[in-house]
Amino acid sequence: MPENFLKVISEELNSVENLIADKLSSQYAEIKPLIEHSLKKKGKMLRPAFAVLFGKMTGVEDEKSVKVGATVELLHNSTLIHDDVIDNADIRRGQKTHNSIWDNTLTVLYGDFMFATAMNIAVELENIEVLRRIAGVSKSLVTGELLQNANAFNFPPKKETYFEIIKLKTAVLFEQSCAIPVVLSGKSQLVEFAEKFGLQLGLAFQIVDDCLDFKADIKKLGKPKLIDLPEGKATYPVLLALENGEQEVVEIVEKVFYSKGEKFEEKDKKRLVKILKSGGYLKKAFDYARQLIRDNLRLLENFEDGVYRETLLKICDFIIDREF
Amino acid sequence: MPENFLKVISEELNSVENLIADKLSSQYAEIKPLIEHSLKKKGKMLRPAFAVLFGKMTGVEDEKSVKVGATVELLHNSTLIHDDVIDNADIRRGQKTHNSIWDNTLTVLYGDFMFATAMNIAVELENIEVLRRIAGVSKSLVTGELLQNANAFNFPPKKETYFEIIKLKTAVLFEQSCAIPVVLSGKSQLVEFAEKFGLQLGLAFQIVDDCLDFKADIKKLGKPKLIDLPEGKATYPVLLALENGEQEVVEIVEKVFYSKGEKFEEKDKKRLVKILKSGGYLKKAFDYARQLIRDNLRLLENFEDGVYRETLLKICDFIIDREF
Repeated sequence: MPENFLKVISEELNSVENLIADKLSSQYAEIKPLIEHSLKKKGKMLRPAFAVLFGKMTGVEDEKSVKVGATVELLHNSTLIHDDVIDNADIRRGQKTHNSIWDNTLTVLYGDFMFATAMNIAVELENIEVLRRIAGVSKSLVTGELLQNANAFNFPPKKETYFEIIKLKTAVLFEQSCAIPVVLSGKSQLVEFAEKFGLQLGLAFQIVDDCLDFKADIKKLGKPKLIDLPEGKATYPVLLALENGEQEVVEIVEKVFYSKGEKFEEKDKKRLVKILKSGGYLKKAFDYARQLIRDNLRLLENFEDGVYRETLLKICDFIIDREF
Repeated sequence: MPENFLKVISEELNSVENLIADKLSSQYAEIKPLIEHSLKKKGKMLRPAFAVLFGKMTGVEDEKSVKVGATVELLHNSTLIHDDVIDNADIRRGQKTHNSIWDNTLTVLYGDFMFATAMNIAVELENIEVLRRIAGVSKSLVTGELLQNANAFNFPPKKETYFEIIKLKTAVLFEQSCAIPVVLSGKSQLVEFAEKFGLQLGLAFQIVDDCLDFKADIKKLGKPKLIDLPEGKATYPVLLALENGEQEVVEIVEKVFYSKGEKFEEKDKKRLVKILKSGGYLKKAFDYARQLIRDNLRLLENFEDGVYRETLLKICDFIIDREF
């Protein structure tokens, strides 16, 4: 994420990182290398940014917002670690994954360790309503992953299933990252606005993320990554093409899914990307995400104007315009 | 577990099972088969029994003790599910494991789902101190598993590591299963007695469990199971033999560990069991567990005399005398 527009909360985001490092640290030498490796990989810190910004807008003490930020970032990272095991991924965020260095066993357990650490930070907030939300979001995250895996390679893929999965695995955590600081502020009339803002933004974020799988990747010599389809995931642009009866897309997806991702030839890749572009399906998906975010902006009018609200608007722009 | 001596709390244990079934239930058809399969397998329900009995002795409402029982049983079961993936086990409690029916991916996620469900039940107790203990115990459980895996096949195995692992992966959950209802009772002066009782009993339970790996298994044609050593785990009787410089045991363990469990021949198995018996190492380990429990009994004198305390004493006997 471009550093400049999160500069206004860089101190708080540093505190989030320090708290994560502190709470993950272990007396056991055996676990230290796994921890150190995970601290090397820095994410975009989007979820902690929401926690800090909504905390700032509603007058929550930084110490509390930082705890919320650390909890949601650890929940997010723990699902990424289990994801990497599931997808047998070697690289994440430009770093080797845990499972490529250690084995799947240690990596699964390390994901559990992160998750348990998140819970330990959350209880320090000493707020039952917050813990109910954290427990709920943790169940949503894993339910989303379960649905995604149970539906992988199912043909024909369903649009309702796609939207349910992205809500559970992504949007609900965005929702709570925004809402929990507001709960802590005691301004209960604002909670629903923060929830709705986070949920819609989360859906938009995931749709854009899924679209980027079909866009030329600068790091990969200008080729698109195309990793979702061979993992059995049909994302929004593909679903739009299928819905519109694009026969070639139907055939490609069918072949990839029936072969469990084995048969995805170079010519099919090129053809798929071409149709998604020329048929306007990628644009339609992007436009839908853009619309979700646009509808969202008025929700922010309920919050105090100022540098923090401005920053949230910049994040919204970034989510639409990002290329990674 | 012989049904008769838990009859006194059979209604409450049924409520624990019903609560688990209710809270695991999901609106998503994709997850239902995994849930149904896990409800088929019934464990000994030891941990919920502790929760209910300590609740009864300290006057906690049954509804609360039942929630504690469901939480600790789900935490326990979620670690078993991840364990089965790690050990590539086919059978647990006479039933096919999840990973033998579904794949490792879905099984790992289903373990996470159980864990998240445990957290959702725990928050219903609306008690921060209890949630702090649940979050702490979840971190201990996974730390114990991490240590066990990180130390697997390490030669020579260390006794201190063994005791640290069984404390973290087993005894701490026993400790909190006993202590949390007492916390809920408000009788804070009794909490430390419940903690100590649970912790010691948990250590004893795991030592006995580990010893049973070397005892003839009736279901397996009278042969011992011997599954720990080829998984890289040296348990207490083996550690005692190594400590005493039993050269043959040293050689067998070294061979098994250096071959990552591949080289464990029939003659070595027979020889190992014979030495552990004739050298008195199995007896010494059992005696140590028995001593831990005996030291423990006086702690119960702090609690109300009656049928529930009697039942705890019977559980102590059962733990020492059990053959499965």
